[in-house]
Amino acid sequence: MTLAARSYAALVHHPVLEKGGRIVTTAVTNLDVHDIARASRTYGLAGYFVVTPIVEQRKLVAEILGHWVTDSGREHNDQRTAALELVRIVSSLEEAVQAVAAEKGAPPFVVATGARPRKNVVSFRSLRVAREADPRPLLLVFGTGWGLADSVFANSDATLEPIQGPRDAVPSGGRSEAEPVDAGYNHLSVRSAVAIVLDRLFARYE
Amino acid sequence: MTLAARSYAALVHHPVLEKGGRIVTTAVTNLDVHDIARASRTYGLAGYFVVTPIVEQRKLVAEILGHWVTDSGREHNDQRTAALELVRIVSSLEEAVQAVAAEKGAPPFVVATGARPRKNVVSFRSLRVAREADPRPLLLVFGTGWGLADSVFANSDATLEPIQGPRDAVPSGGRSEAEPVDAGYNHLSVRSAVAIVLDRLFARYE
Repeated sequence: MTLAARSYAALVHHPVLEKGGRIVTTAVTNLDVHDIARASRTYGLAGYFVVTPIVEQRKLVAEILGHWVTDSGREHNDQRTAALELVRIVSSLEEAVQAVAAEKGAPPFVVATGARPRKNVVSFRSLRVAREADPRPLLLVFGTGWGLADSVFANSDATLEPIQGPRDAVPSGGRSEAEPVDAGYNHLSVRSAVAIVLDRLFARYE
Repeated sequence: MTLAARSYAALVHHPVLEKGGRIVTTAVTNLDVHDIARASRTYGLAGYFVVTPIVEQRKLVAEILGHWVTDSGREHNDQRTAALELVRIVSSLEEAVQAVAAEKGAPPFVVATGARPRKNVVSFRSLRVAREADPRPLLLVFGTGWGLADSVFANSDATLEPIQGPRDAVPSGGRSEAEPVDAGYNHLSVRSAVAIVLDRLFARYE
């Protein structure tokens, strides 16, 4: 089984940080469900967990899925249906880990992701090489809001290095050329970050 | 000047296709403006054109920018402001080409993108190598809806190969294991596609 076919994405809405650093629960958005399902399907993942402890939010996701995975949704747009079939709704990351273990017969290797620099991160290449050599499933964990709480990093098996653009990136031509340049800007949306991480780990291209 | 610093993204809302193949004008979405601005800023692009012939839609984008680029928006979230400063609102792709020429002193090399297979596409690697060797600006053109109209491809200098996941991707563990597998699924959102294209062309990572 290829690495992608035993890999899962998880989008965590709790515990995550707000701008000030407090631990909060964010709201599930329709577009996060759709965009990340489509990226997960494109790269051949085994599943995509939407993680929220809030019952009403899990119902909301179930309604989104219900619409598209029913026969009427299928007729309208089967590409969307094929993507949303990957979505699993769970109340916690622990529940996602258990679901992977039940599905694949072994607990996953859990990798936390984030935009901020952290100690002991693994590179994309070394993660891919190590995970391809290990038959266990892989669970890639993404945070909403201002990123995953520290406890998620502490309970993961590894932390992936942040996505960065070109180190020498110097924006030019914008309206703010006179302002100081922050070459380390990496404030991608979580939708974009998931797409890039999956591409770096699973795509093969020239 | 690095390739990224003389490169631009354009998100086209006309002429694009609807599902049935007719040429239509799609609506600008708030999230397309934000997500693609943030990706453009992360990779150090010189600008991001939101292209729509509809006056009211251009006003809508101007209002989004107005909020975040004013002082009150700046105070609230300067990362978002730094991204949105890259956004230019234009009525046509031709206007975007002229704006790049005015800004950089030379017309851009225009590259169309799309999810469907087309003849004479260039690979990511060969595009990057060729563009790094040529000092002209680069304009990467992305379509909303069901993709760019044929006329955009015909008027471009090159077409980039479609994004594909792993060629051997076989989804498993979903609810539809009994169904035929479409290994060529590549129905990414345009937000995800832009993020991946920028990463493939401009990032350097291990």
